Amino acid sequence: MSELSPSGPAGVAIPAAQRFAAVRTRTEALCAPLELDDYGVQPFVDASPPKWHLAHTTWFFETFLLKASVAGYQPFHPAFERLFNSYYNGVGEPFPRPQRGTLSRPTVAEVQAYRRHVDAGMQPLLRLADPEICSRIELGLHHEQQHQELILTDIKANLGSNPLRPAYAPDATVPSPTSRELAFRHFGGGKAEIGHGADGFSFDNERPRHCVWLPEFAIANRLTNNGEYLAFMEDGGYETPSLWLSEGWAWRCRHEVAAPLYWRRAEDWREYRLDGEAPVAADAPVAHVSYFEADAYARWAGCRLPTEAEWEMAATMPGAQLANGNGPGAGQAEAPLDQLFAVRWQWTASAYAPYPGYRALAGTLGEYNGKFMSSQQVLRGSSCATPPGHARATYRNFFYPKDRWQFTGIRLAR
Amino acid sequence: MSELSPSGPAGVAIPAAQRFAAVRTRTEALCAPLELDDYGVQPFVDASPPKWHLAHTTWFFETFLLKASVAGYQPFHPAFERLFNSYYNGVGEPFPRPQRGTLSRPTVAEVQAYRRHVDAGMQPLLRLADPEICSRIELGLHHEQQHQELILTDIKANLGSNPLRPAYAPDATVPSPTSRELAFRHFGGGKAEIGHGADGFSFDNERPRHCVWLPEFAIANRLTNNGEYLAFMEDGGYETPSLWLSEGWAWRCRHEVAAPLYWRRAEDWREYRLDGEAPVAADAPVAHVSYFEADAYARWAGCRLPTEAEWEMAATMPGAQLANGNGPGAGQAEAPLDQLFAVRWQWTASAYAPYPGYRALAGTLGEYNGKFMSSQQVLRGSSCATPPGHARATYRNFFYPKDRWQFTGIRLAR
Amino acid sequence: MSELSPSGPAGVAIPAAQRFAAVRTRTEALCAPLELDDYGVQPFVDASPPKWHLAHTTWFFETFLLKASVAGYQPFHPAFERLFNSYYNGVGEPFPRPQRGTLSRPTVAEVQAYRRHVDAGMQPLLRLADPEICSRIELGLHHEQQHQELILTDIKANLGSNPLRPAYAPDATVPSPTSRELAFRHFGGGKAEIGHGADGFSFDNERPRHCVWLPEFAIANRLTNNGEYLAFMEDGGYETPSLWLSEGWAWRCRHEVAAPLYWRRAEDWREYRLDGEAPVAADAPVAHVSYFEADAYARWAGCRLPTEAEWEMAATMPGAQLANGNGPGAGQAEAPLDQLFAVRWQWTASAYAPYPGYRALAGTLGEYNGKFMSSQQVLRGSSCATPPGHARATYRNFFYPKDRWQFTGIRLAR
Amino acid sequence: MSELSPSGPAGVAIPAAQRFAAVRTRTEALCAPLELDDYGVQPFVDASPPKWHLAHTTWFFETFLLKASVAGYQPFHPAFERLFNSYYNGVGEPFPRPQRGTLSRPTVAEVQAYRRHVDAGMQPLLRLADPEICSRIELGLHHEQQHQELILTDIKANLGSNPLRPAYAPDATVPSPTSRELAFRHFGGGKAEIGHGADGFSFDNERPRHCVWLPEFAIANRLTNNGEYLAFMEDGGYETPSLWLSEGWAWRCRHEVAAPLYWRRAEDWREYRLDGEAPVAADAPVAHVSYFEADAYARWAGCRLPTEAEWEMAATMPGAQLANGNGPGAGQAEAPLDQLFAVRWQWTASAYAPYPGYRALAGTLGEYNGKFMSSQQVLRGSSCATPPGHARATYRNFFYPKDRWQFTGIRLAR
Repeated sequence: MSELSPSGPAGVAIPAAQRFAAVRTRTEALCAPLELDDYGVQPFVDASPPKWHLAHTTWFFETFLLKASVAGYQPFHPAFERLFNSYYNGVGEPFPRPQRGTLSRPTVAEVQAYRRHVDAGMQPLLRLADPEICSRIELGLHHEQQHQELILTDIKANLGSNPLRPAYAPDATVPSPTSRELAFRHFGGGKAEIGHGADGFSFDNERPRHCVWLPEFAIANRLTNNGEYLAFMEDGGYETPSLWLSEGWAWRCRHEVAAPLYWRRAEDWREYRLDGEAPVAADAPVAHVSYFEADAYARWAGCRLPTEAEWEMAATMPGAQLANGNGPGAGQAEAPLDQLFAVRWQWTASAYAPYPGYRALAGTLGEYNGKFMSSQQVLRGSSCATPPGHARATYRNFFYPKDRWQFTGIRLAR
Repeated sequence: MSELSPSGPAGVAIPAAQRFAAVRTRTEALCAPLELDDYGVQPFVDASPPKWHLAHTTWFFETFLLKASVAGYQPFHPAFERLFNSYYNGVGEPFPRPQRGTLSRPTVAEVQAYRRHVDAGMQPLLRLADPEICSRIELGLHHEQQHQELILTDIKANLGSNPLRPAYAPDATVPSPTSRELAFRHFGGGKAEIGHGADGFSFDNERPRHCVWLPEFAIANRLTNNGEYLAFMEDGGYETPSLWLSEGWAWRCRHEVAAPLYWRRAEDWREYRLDGEAPVAADAPVAHVSYFEADAYARWAGCRLPTEAEWEMAATMPGAQLANGNGPGAGQAEAPLDQLFAVRWQWTASAYAPYPGYRALAGTLGEYNGKFMSSQQVLRGSSCATPPGHARATYRNFFYPKDRWQFTGIRLAR
Repeated sequence: MSELSPSGPAGVAIPAAQRFAAVRTRTEALCAPLELDDYGVQPFVDASPPKWHLAHTTWFFETFLLKASVAGYQPFHPAFERLFNSYYNGVGEPFPRPQRGTLSRPTVAEVQAYRRHVDAGMQPLLRLADPEICSRIELGLHHEQQHQELILTDIKANLGSNPLRPAYAPDATVPSPTSRELAFRHFGGGKAEIGHGADGFSFDNERPRHCVWLPEFAIANRLTNNGEYLAFMEDGGYETPSLWLSEGWAWRCRHEVAAPLYWRRAEDWREYRLDGEAPVAADAPVAHVSYFEADAYARWAGCRLPTEAEWEMAATMPGAQLANGNGPGAGQAEAPLDQLFAVRWQWTASAYAPYPGYRALAGTLGEYNGKFMSSQQVLRGSSCATPPGHARATYRNFFYPKDRWQFTGIRLAR
Repeated sequence: MSELSPSGPAGVAIPAAQRFAAVRTRTEALCAPLELDDYGVQPFVDASPPKWHLAHTTWFFETFLLKASVAGYQPFHPAFERLFNSYYNGVGEPFPRPQRGTLSRPTVAEVQAYRRHVDAGMQPLLRLADPEICSRIELGLHHEQQHQELILTDIKANLGSNPLRPAYAPDATVPSPTSRELAFRHFGGGKAEIGHGADGFSFDNERPRHCVWLPEFAIANRLTNNGEYLAFMEDGGYETPSLWLSEGWAWRCRHEVAAPLYWRRAEDWREYRLDGEAPVAADAPVAHVSYFEADAYARWAGCRLPTEAEWEMAATMPGAQLANGNGPGAGQAEAPLDQLFAVRWQWTASAYAPYPGYRALAGTLGEYNGKFMSSQQVLRGSSCATPPGHARATYRNFFYPKDRWQFTGIRLAR
């Protein structure tokens, strides 16, 4: 099975051209509910404008496929090489990230033309069997899927900080209630293997598969929900420094954090969601918490966060939900662990670091993942914003401990 | 004659409704060459998005006329009171200025509807003879004219910092060559009067007319041009601390300033203009210099900048160009002083301070001018971006010494 | 009479060597109450360590006299040229001001040796009649007197921000009660002359004497006292934005200012003084207010601050206190204006700018005053920390509107 | 053997009073070469003044022993509880760290009196057998030893940034040449145990001893030396972004880092050492590199940094140097790994995180280590500034990736 397939049934290979079209189309479909006014806004330095995502995902194919492999390829515009380079120093000095929101030109229409230009240029390559080209196309599509998630979270960061609190789309929020009682699933510990093996796509940071030694541990059968998190808040969790990491306490004080992102105190707590502002639902999994908050909550609850190895071990035991929303085991009520995928990214206690024997991709593409392996934490699973079929049990997402504009949540361990 | 009239012949009173329509229409006409993508961008904290200007000028009429004087007026949107309040603490806490560029909502279309709503609401008021209402309407129109100039300079700040250097409009730049040889016009000094007298509109900061004692002085017959400024640059002006104010030298070092804003060194110097990038024309008046640069240039030239009283005295002598582009004396080759108006705002050596006996407007409108009387410098005249009929010889513009995104230039004195 | 004389009777010329010794000795005497631990501290970036003042005043004589005029002079240490250069770019790039407090070497003992070395080197020059040398010596002594005041205010900034609130000296505070009822002295306005004339020492910024035209005005007969200022505070002065300049309100909010510097709310208000913490005395003149606070207080009181020309005019009328504590009229109860000198520096409404015809000193010494003529406000009079004999009616002190670690106070006008 | 014993032979228990006296005396001995001027300086925010260290180590005994266990204990000064609290929120809000260098009071003499007061108060406790008290005393002595190292590195940060480059002491640098050829020692991988077992002192972060699974790996037999590091520099290492972590490259660019801390380019490279400035010795182990530099160097060398588990495994193999300078195997030329201890702290690839089953100390002392477990990297071994007997193979030091004012170095792995 290719995890790439956005919609196809397991086990059936989908032609590259079809996959390419599907992924590229989905990106634009995600932007369809937007007003043109929304495409250019960078609500804070980490969140990019939708227009930038549309261009940068295109730049990826132009840079690493068309320019690299098509003799005589004419770039769409000479300035785009720098404008839409995210962070690849091997390509050149990128346009400064904090100023992405000031680029009113190229216009959305011009960026759409850029997409068409590159889509057309890609067609011959999509029919080639050259392994390096196939591999880069696959990487480009996974890359674009990652930006599909970012488009949603960056749009939420924009609309959610606007005092008018406009909805992105009326049907944008899928309920994912925590229907089961919180319980802990025990694992005996010992030697285990984690990481991605040989077949199918994975990012370089998931490899190689390797042995770890796990302690005996227990992990929660579901995500922490808003009701539980409110109990922490009402117990003074945000005012008790002994619950917090030192950096977390400083962060909470400097920014006067007293609730998850997008929560607002009216008569009751309300939260901004992609379908507009709504009351905080007690049984919904808490979202938009930083690592610092997740860690403090866990300490308050007498627990801790799982390591990424524990998480992966638990997620791959027989009976666990197997993949991101499209496997046969997904959502089974009897699975020992619920809500592994497609609900909230789950903060782990593991810093983002190379696996033993890690090798970055060759050349400039080696900057994709490896150079970010400092000061960040691994998140596992996937979220409601992750494209179907994108994530897997070995997937390693990573953000800074302070970050909370992704759909981040909490799964306890002990 | 009302300086307000955007187009009418001198001496003919224009009905308020007609003036209102003319000013409001002109604001939108200035935005016509823009792409929709351009309306929301805030290129740096001091420069606001065009959409914000369109809304804020409307907010001014809604707040100080419709809400204040029309019983039962229904505001267009309850959140706009805060969103489009610039700095009037008497109205409430304004939306933070540095985040104006993140407001993708309301959309441009909604802001245009807001304009129509307020324009319609204003119609009955435009027919009233109530002096307070007439005075507020007149202030609101002058206010909107000030924002017309800001729309142009803020658009230039956006497009001019975009690596694509797109033009705002192909005919946006009017040549204003320094056709005469530089000469100094002498004034004998002694008692003089400056400031605005009783008739016609003026801002509160131009009043009262009062006596000053002027030294003997001489003032340049025209603006400093690019060729003269280049000589300063080639003589090491930007590398010679003894030419600079202490704050100016620190500013120049911190920001690595080595030329006027919008200049770029290619083979020769080029400058971004509203009609696109072009070679720096030696005989065009230098633009986009800070007070620090103007002051350093003047010192290098063995001169100084005029005080605002000297400037006003010189500008009102018989034979001087009388007003901003629409008086009979404008542009006369034989006028003792050229380029007083409609070319470049002219930095003066005078800090922005209240005139003796200054009284701010009553109530919240008193925040319009008076509270900015610290740390800024007065500029006199007007610029190529100033609406025709807006400025006058007593007009006091003011910016911080570091500011240079306005069409600021240099007139020497000694 | 030479205003320079620190102790001599009026009208008697004091030999330069004697004056030199007196000023140099007084500087060290001011440091005598300190612990050695106190000499190196820089409590905030604007306030320098006492050790630095001891060295820099010595550097002034070494740089502008010994190195400039003594053939074969051997500098005390080659690194001191940079270490103790305050801001003279003509000498070279100064050691960064914010790091003055990190210079534990040279030690206090080494700086004292530096003083002895330069004092010895100066002896031959003190007997010369060369006018340029005499003039530089005089400037150097006035310069050192300015730093004597800074030593006291910078020590106060250090000890006053220490939680232990140690006293500098038990007898350091001289009472200066506001014994008279507040009244306003009227002046008719018209042509006047201000600035320093030909005889005697003055700084370049006091020259030339020139004509001004004054409006009719009235000025308070004494300084504002703490009781009056407390009434402003109790009336919500610090919470009323309409009383404040825009920059002042931003400053007050950012720093959460709610009282003069060194005030602390216990059961009653207490203030740190150089003799330790004491209750705020209602009849003592308020001290340590910024221009923003002085301006807001004046607006609250229905008044304004005087311009520097008004102040100087009033201070030089017959019957006014004539000089800084050593003239026959000083302190007379019947003088029309009290507390002009030796109590509090008085904020004026005048920005610090060059007088008409101003000429800076030639060469590097031209950096002494002129390059600071932007964004600062003039203060007039002198303070309890000013050395006797140092100030005069034409003296122009200048600080930024936010500054309040000097002994700054308020004299109202209207 | 107690690792605590600063000087005693292995296997002989040293009475607590004697150990207490030895550690406390050594702290003061380290300050003996200082000028009094040096005691108060905070050269940058992370480095505290020596006086502060003298007081804080005393505060630790006063707070956690005298106040906690001695009925009726009279604190030396009520303000010291806050002034010398480093980061224990359980005690109260600490005095702000960035302002430690402004505390000229208490004076050095008063801090010495504070030390005497607490030393005297401690005497009865030193004779008790109560396990909690004994344990806290032991912790307090280890704590003071940690500050002994910081005193040296913070003094170096002060004197080394002073343009005069004064020496701390003429005999302060002990040569530790890299006498052997660089070689890699192989380890087969598999299950291993790391962490501190039951006997003897350790910090809570070293516990519990637990299993890990190690890959096959090889580790360098000695530290990287200056000659090798210079080859990296000469090969453009500091100008090649592909060698750097993303954060590291940003750090290097922002701070214009081009060499290890304290290096200065004259004709040849020179480095500031505690005995003064000297030429960089090619065979000395490189010091004062950040994690970013260590990581970039390792990548350039085709290697990587070891994990902390690899390091500990290698350090505890038979034949490895066993402890910090006082074991029988220390410095043996035939040991498979040289320079494990007492030369340079060795950056590891491991983020500082809790061991499986980690439990912080109870109560406020739980803030000692655990709350810093985010965003930092583990360093192993010890340095030339570490007190003899202080470190051990399980010791976990931790600093931010950017930090380099400790004696940090590089041991390669692959």
